[in-house]
Amino acid sequence: MEKELAVELIDSKCFVKLKSELQEMNPADIAFLVEELNGDGEIGEKELILMYRILPKELAAEAFTYMDSDTQMTLINAFSDRELRYVLDELYIDDTVDIIEEMPANVVSRILRNTDSDTRKQINQLLNYPKDSAGSVMTTEFVYLKKELTVSEAFEQIRKIGLVKETVYTCYVTENRRLLGIVTVLDMLVADSDTAVEDIMETNVISVNTHDDREYVARTMSKYDFAAMPVVDNENRIVGIVTFDDAMDVLQEENTEDFAKMAAVVPAEDSYFKTSVWSHAKSRIPWLLILMLSATLTGMISARFEPQIAVIPMLVSFMPMVMGTGGNCGSQSSTLIIRGMALEEIRLRDFFKVVFKELRIALICAAVLSVVNGLRVLITYKDPALALVIGLSLIGTVVIAKLVGAMLPMGAKALKLDPAIMANPLITTVVDSCSLLIYFTIATNILSGRL
Amino acid sequence: MEKELAVELIDSKCFVKLKSELQEMNPADIAFLVEELNGDGEIGEKELILMYRILPKELAAEAFTYMDSDTQMTLINAFSDRELRYVLDELYIDDTVDIIEEMPANVVSRILRNTDSDTRKQINQLLNYPKDSAGSVMTTEFVYLKKELTVSEAFEQIRKIGLVKETVYTCYVTENRRLLGIVTVLDMLVADSDTAVEDIMETNVISVNTHDDREYVARTMSKYDFAAMPVVDNENRIVGIVTFDDAMDVLQEENTEDFAKMAAVVPAEDSYFKTSVWSHAKSRIPWLLILMLSATLTGMISARFEPQIAVIPMLVSFMPMVMGTGGNCGSQSSTLIIRGMALEEIRLRDFFKVVFKELRIALICAAVLSVVNGLRVLITYKDPALALVIGLSLIGTVVIAKLVGAMLPMGAKALKLDPAIMANPLITTVVDSCSLLIYFTIATNILSGRL
Repeated sequence: MEKELAVELIDSKCFVKLKSELQEMNPADIAFLVEELNGDGEIGEKELILMYRILPKELAAEAFTYMDSDTQMTLINAFSDRELRYVLDELYIDDTVDIIEEMPANVVSRILRNTDSDTRKQINQLLNYPKDSAGSVMTTEFVYLKKELTVSEAFEQIRKIGLVKETVYTCYVTENRRLLGIVTVLDMLVADSDTAVEDIMETNVISVNTHDDREYVARTMSKYDFAAMPVVDNENRIVGIVTFDDAMDVLQEENTEDFAKMAAVVPAEDSYFKTSVWSHAKSRIPWLLILMLSATLTGMISARFEPQIAVIPMLVSFMPMVMGTGGNCGSQSSTLIIRGMALEEIRLRDFFKVVFKELRIALICAAVLSVVNGLRVLITYKDPALALVIGLSLIGTVVIAKLVGAMLPMGAKALKLDPAIMANPLITTVVDSCSLLIYFTIATNILSGRL
Repeated sequence: MEKELAVELIDSKCFVKLKSELQEMNPADIAFLVEELNGDGEIGEKELILMYRILPKELAAEAFTYMDSDTQMTLINAFSDRELRYVLDELYIDDTVDIIEEMPANVVSRILRNTDSDTRKQINQLLNYPKDSAGSVMTTEFVYLKKELTVSEAFEQIRKIGLVKETVYTCYVTENRRLLGIVTVLDMLVADSDTAVEDIMETNVISVNTHDDREYVARTMSKYDFAAMPVVDNENRIVGIVTFDDAMDVLQEENTEDFAKMAAVVPAEDSYFKTSVWSHAKSRIPWLLILMLSATLTGMISARFEPQIAVIPMLVSFMPMVMGTGGNCGSQSSTLIIRGMALEEIRLRDFFKVVFKELRIALICAAVLSVVNGLRVLITYKDPALALVIGLSLIGTVVIAKLVGAMLPMGAKALKLDPAIMANPLITTVVDSCSLLIYFTIATNILSGRL
């Protein structure tokens, strides 16, 4: 259903038609429609809640998980305790935890008051895992089977509990919560119904620890093509699973964070529009100040050459080109290397291999750029000495820029810092100083006769 | 098994131990081990093939799909026709197509010669879909059921064919290949065994077209948390499915491409180390040349102010700071907006909303930066007029930079260009000119008494 139709139906109070239209929709689409209506202010809170209450209970609860935290909070505030309990019963525990993490304290305590003590314990446990850990993205709901069960008993168990579990197709065979192996529903479908699960389980299980980084978990799942990854504690007891849909979200969020960091922005929690103007400014100003003050150093380098500039003011007109080319060369190298490290294609022990490779690439790029630009200067200004200055400066700048662009991110990694902060803006600032120093030094030497 | 142990076992010809170690490993890990050994030149081709032949056939075929194309080619060249046929039989068709796309013509024809005519037809069909389309990433192997089948008949069918299908947990109910609905194995496990699948199928199916963009497909799957997405042709006949593991790969590849584009690099097909020095240079030089020549324009702007620079050479020492701050501000905005558009959080119709938001963010950033730097100049140089020049220039530069950074990527999108090419380097080059123009104009006016 389009937004316009929804508004029309609400305005004209055609609730029967509205209900039947909503029932045809996917829960995710209902959530996006509700969000859009709420965000644009096209319907008020009262209509929003009314629209939500029209939905069949189960569909309503499912749509709830897809909404953003603002809309969820509006709804929770309007819910009766009974409605809240119903929604919470339908939610997977990891989704409840996601909601709790976004809510103010009074809403959190209301949510916790309305869950049973067992769920509350699981929620508290999940809340205690460090941010960005496997524990913080896993769900504690999965199917575990005793090893003695037969296939038909296992199916009986899945039938009983399956509907509330996030994924049932991979079952975990455990003994005292220790993970012995995994068995898939397909394995069981193909096997005889009286086979014991321990006879068909796969014992070579790959698992992660609750404290492993969530990005590592997602990348490992992608590497092995896993739909779910078991998460174990330090005693190898299975405590949860990470499912592929959460892994996909993790990959997207981590990529978004890297994009922000590489543009010298402190990553925001929310989307572009959800983040306020003040928060945007706050996440951009720190790096701008740092980079502005470090650019002052570059200025001090050019200040040292003021006497030469006073005599040959034309030198200034090549500064943007030399600095710009250096910055671009450096950010090409740093971006590719930061990405390569994020994908684990480039490791720390490859340091010299990377530096040597960048050196060779730099020499080719430098040769092309200096010939093209040297010729341009020669033709425009008919000044061979000046063309030589530009050509040589570009060679020095490109080589230094690519080496700095390669070494800084790898150095950051070695110091256990995030390589992404060593991206374009910082590299550019560092390379700017080098470029100007090279350029003015070469110019002073070659053009010394004119000074 | 660690690389060192593998080399040792091969060198000392302990093949029984090698076999038992390999059998304990996950197929993906076997593939990475083989690649690593091959890449480092620690074992020769002969040992590589020997190691591969030691593996149980099924494990060998599965490991094969995870290897890179170099290693696959080495193995294919060594395979007998019988071995090749066995591996091809075990592969999913979409994996075979991925391999074919990487291989030289003689290997391709050998592969096609060794597949049966039905598979060959499917391969050729998949090869014909445009690059980056849903058709090019889908697999043609999925479970489809007639609507009259009962649950127990459906399970019988899954048992018979299930093992060779990439995913069996979502089954597609079809009539004359037209998609009527989907039914999951869980739905069927919970239902009575004599229920007809049409009675429990979900008819509100979300599908994509073979020609839809693969990134759109992956993002849609992530949005709805789908493990598999049906792909239909223009007549709504189901022709394949895209599975979550391929969707995850697509997301990672598209992100990697965006990172490269945003650093002014033509995206490469291969990983950093697999791409040769020449290819790296070739993918970096075009943008460097374009940006170098456009930076020359910036140089021409500063050339216009040579008379002023000759009188007050100190003006030069603030150029890097003003240009750098402009570039950083612009790339912050452009990166966040490019990413927002990639995630579909920002749409074209939000143009004025984005510009207005960036304007307000810019004013806050500008105020902070100009006060901080103005004060610094005032304290360092005890020159209020100069401090005013710097402060005002920064305000102008930051505002222009953020607006350009917002408008260029959205403009590119409106022209159906990839917004990612409007990232940092290009923005920086455009913003540099504006910054210098603002800076020198303000300086000339305020400091006119000294000129």
